[in-house]
Amino acid sequence: MGDHSGRFDVMEDQDLQHLPTPCALVDLERVERNCRAMAATARRLGVRLRPHVKTHKCIEAGRLQRADAPGIAVSTLAEARHFAAAGFRDITYAVPIAPERLPEAVEIGRGIDRLSVLVDGAVAVAAAERAAVAAGVRVSVFLKVDCGYGRAGVDPESPAAFALARRLAASPQLDFRGLLTHGGHSYGSRSVAESRQAAAQEAAAPVAFAEALRREGVEVPEVSVGSTPTCTALAGEVEDGADTVGGPGAPWEGVTEIRPGNYIFFDVHQAAVGSCRLSDVAFSVLVTVISHHSERNRLLVNAGSLALSADPGPRHIDPHCGFGVVADLTGEPIAGLRLSSLSQEHGWVEAVSGDGAALAAFPVGIRLRILPNHSCLAAALHDRYHVLRQGRLVAEWRPVRGW
Amino acid sequence: MGDHSGRFDVMEDQDLQHLPTPCALVDLERVERNCRAMAATARRLGVRLRPHVKTHKCIEAGRLQRADAPGIAVSTLAEARHFAAAGFRDITYAVPIAPERLPEAVEIGRGIDRLSVLVDGAVAVAAAERAAVAAGVRVSVFLKVDCGYGRAGVDPESPAAFALARRLAASPQLDFRGLLTHGGHSYGSRSVAESRQAAAQEAAAPVAFAEALRREGVEVPEVSVGSTPTCTALAGEVEDGADTVGGPGAPWEGVTEIRPGNYIFFDVHQAAVGSCRLSDVAFSVLVTVISHHSERNRLLVNAGSLALSADPGPRHIDPHCGFGVVADLTGEPIAGLRLSSLSQEHGWVEAVSGDGAALAAFPVGIRLRILPNHSCLAAALHDRYHVLRQGRLVAEWRPVRGW
Repeated sequence: MGDHSGRFDVMEDQDLQHLPTPCALVDLERVERNCRAMAATARRLGVRLRPHVKTHKCIEAGRLQRADAPGIAVSTLAEARHFAAAGFRDITYAVPIAPERLPEAVEIGRGIDRLSVLVDGAVAVAAAERAAVAAGVRVSVFLKVDCGYGRAGVDPESPAAFALARRLAASPQLDFRGLLTHGGHSYGSRSVAESRQAAAQEAAAPVAFAEALRREGVEVPEVSVGSTPTCTALAGEVEDGADTVGGPGAPWEGVTEIRPGNYIFFDVHQAAVGSCRLSDVAFSVLVTVISHHSERNRLLVNAGSLALSADPGPRHIDPHCGFGVVADLTGEPIAGLRLSSLSQEHGWVEAVSGDGAALAAFPVGIRLRILPNHSCLAAALHDRYHVLRQGRLVAEWRPVRGW
Repeated sequence: MGDHSGRFDVMEDQDLQHLPTPCALVDLERVERNCRAMAATARRLGVRLRPHVKTHKCIEAGRLQRADAPGIAVSTLAEARHFAAAGFRDITYAVPIAPERLPEAVEIGRGIDRLSVLVDGAVAVAAAERAAVAAGVRVSVFLKVDCGYGRAGVDPESPAAFALARRLAASPQLDFRGLLTHGGHSYGSRSVAESRQAAAQEAAAPVAFAEALRREGVEVPEVSVGSTPTCTALAGEVEDGADTVGGPGAPWEGVTEIRPGNYIFFDVHQAAVGSCRLSDVAFSVLVTVISHHSERNRLLVNAGSLALSADPGPRHIDPHCGFGVVADLTGEPIAGLRLSSLSQEHGWVEAVSGDGAALAAFPVGIRLRILPNHSCLAAALHDRYHVLRQGRLVAEWRPVRGW
């Protein structure tokens, strides 16, 4: 593997010539490398890794992530049910739960060691307590904290946040697991330096809140943070340091676990932010050229917004970025081509030079790969992933869908 | 029905209070009304209606459309297979076919009266002939014509287009069905007037090309045009005219069939363009408020880009349009709320006024509907549609997925 991960000789590649297009490809060497790197980052930061499975939603990928992690995070109860049935026993449902879904969450949790849910207000807390009483169990809860992203979560400096945390900790029906935040504004970063700032902000708010609560005698077992941009940004910061950089003075002192997810596949957005290289992107869509009109500087591939998602990509970094990166069958980006537009089942490719003659190498029938702008959204559009090792098909993974 | 189509008393609506959220809703009265209106438009234009099923991809909706139509158009071979198995016998696969998929298309076509494929270049024509020889059948083909959209299709004024049409008509392996175009630039219209201009352009190119071919003795049975914006724009033009406005001098003289699809559901984009009213939108996503922070003018619903798609909406008309329209349980838009952002499983709602106090009426646990920006993309994210009549659940429809 090493530098050759994910590369192989196109001429010998029979499988990629025969899969029906469009279809989803996963490069297993890249997945394994990405998983090893994030596990190493967590060890060196001195935090536990709780991988988020929302990007892939399939058991096999979750098992690769779990090799170094005791638990997982999920984005839907459908994922929770699916992974619980496959033997994953410590699951955090990392989206504020709709009160109506609490009985279902409690039921899933009964079959495993722990399903933790997220609350950020009194209505959900009361619903969790009712569900606990009805089922005769204690419900594990995290208090969602806003760290400046402004999405969900209590303001950790507000009196209401303190009151809610005290109530969670004191409730006989609830098992208060601690504080959880998501620095989603890191997706707006333009550089690793900005992601590091987001990382500092992401940890500062819940760590300070946890310390304040502990001073009041409230036990706060966990402080859970970390998105792919913030974790990879800190990885760069620590990579020249000691084997372990956790502990006092460490970048995320006071943090107990991280929950990145996208890193298993990465994507064009993450490469633009500096979280990875394009050669780390492990998910792509295999396509065929279906129309070719060099006179109008246009070729079409048979993947549109239903195979790639309509995600516009990191336009805050590159206003001219396309709807994905056009690559050859090895996954190597093809210079000079731009995926300029998508309709439902068509992807529009043009030569950046404006000279359609540059498209001559890609006639109707030739196959290409598209690296997606946002792998979480693109992967969710496919009911199976064709898994490759050294360019040969070695497995088919089926993600779980719905909610 | 009439003016009350799709409206009902919320207090009596038990089904909408019990469906797990997020989930897809279809208002059957609106679907039926939209289907009747498009059938009437086709009759008055003097053209056949060949509804496109790409928006809903389910048999039940296709049957409602077929009541007034002999055939359908599809956007994937998966749809072709699914509808053929359900008794749909005249299908046009209205995307240029990847040469590799021709044997599969021929196989589907053998089981029904006709599966027509689209070609716009010599490579695909040769592949169609090979597939026909291999299967011992003739393959029905349309020549895709560009009408100014610039996506797929031959330039109808080019010598190459004439040569290709002659070759199709002369091929013993092929059944040349005629010319087909898609005025996709109508989706960039800002008004009905602009859609009418697009409609004129959409028909002019293939009609003139068909006439030129006929002067050379080439038989051109069909001229197939029409998207939802162009068809509805012309409907407005003809609605005060005679019962039939086809024939010489009619808006689309020379056109034989239209292939609109989105009209069955419509969406926020179509309403902005003037193709429909928001009260015609028949597809929506039922959501629950999961987080409420009026102090930061924010509430969150449990539908993000995986339940609604990341389609940014008609920003060319309204730069401040949201990622869908927030509506109450009857489907009535709620003034003053904006769906300002989406993440994977979260929708961010704010008060347009900037005053979060306006969110007080929507606490955690309350249910809302989101009318999608683009129903074709949003519907494709759901594995079932909950079908309502008078607000009561009357059916569950399952769309076909994949390619």
